[in-house]
Amino acid sequence: MPSLLIIAHGSRRAASNDEIRQLADAVRVQPAHAYDHVEAAFLELAEPGILDGLTALAARGATEIVAFPYFLAAGTHVAQDIPDVIAGFGVAYPAVKVRLTQHLGASAALPAAILGMAA
Amino acid sequence: MPSLLIIAHGSRRAASNDEIRQLADAVRVQPAHAYDHVEAAFLELAEPGILDGLTALAARGATEIVAFPYFLAAGTHVAQDIPDVIAGFGVAYPAVKVRLTQHLGASAALPAAILGMAA
Repeated sequence: MPSLLIIAHGSRRAASNDEIRQLADAVRVQPAHAYDHVEAAFLELAEPGILDGLTALAARGATEIVAFPYFLAAGTHVAQDIPDVIAGFGVAYPAVKVRLTQHLGASAALPAAILGMAA
Repeated sequence: MPSLLIIAHGSRRAASNDEIRQLADAVRVQPAHAYDHVEAAFLELAEPGILDGLTALAARGATEIVAFPYFLAAGTHVAQDIPDVIAGFGVAYPAVKVRLTQHLGASAALPAAILGMAA
């Protein structure tokens, strides 16, 4: 089974980074999902970074990683910075397949999810 | 039926604000939801502001508005700035009930939604 890496921006505010880690914990314990491991990583300002997060999953045996950018807008971070780090990982770990999904804000599932969240 | 106001931060980047407006459009056309109107508003840097967004819904006859903070982290904007604006609206429009939901990042529905988005 693949592993899931939730990639957040990272904040100087420790509580915001903890929110992301708790989110990964909450995803991990959802019933009947398709992932061996679910972890969080940060583009900057918090640990682990994206490269460390990917490498740690590879060290745990992951050969397929779904990378989910937990970002609302398609700015430079989503369009360039995150793909660049993943490309660098691919050079070092060619046997590990990383699939980068759309960012949170662009997900086709978000409109229905928002209706459920706001209810 | 209530109306839904999706409250985003707002950006200097016009494309990011357009993403939010398109998200509101996408929510609006979801099948069988419970809202008369679905609109977007911005805390700063883009129009309409939150107060204008609430007022416009009231002008269209809304007597109950669900305000959904489209924010990932529970910083000052979510904890203080948005509630303050809503409180100000309540003074001007006491007959309109505004219910502020949890912010996106804290929604209990988000973990399951992320699994669906990443699939």
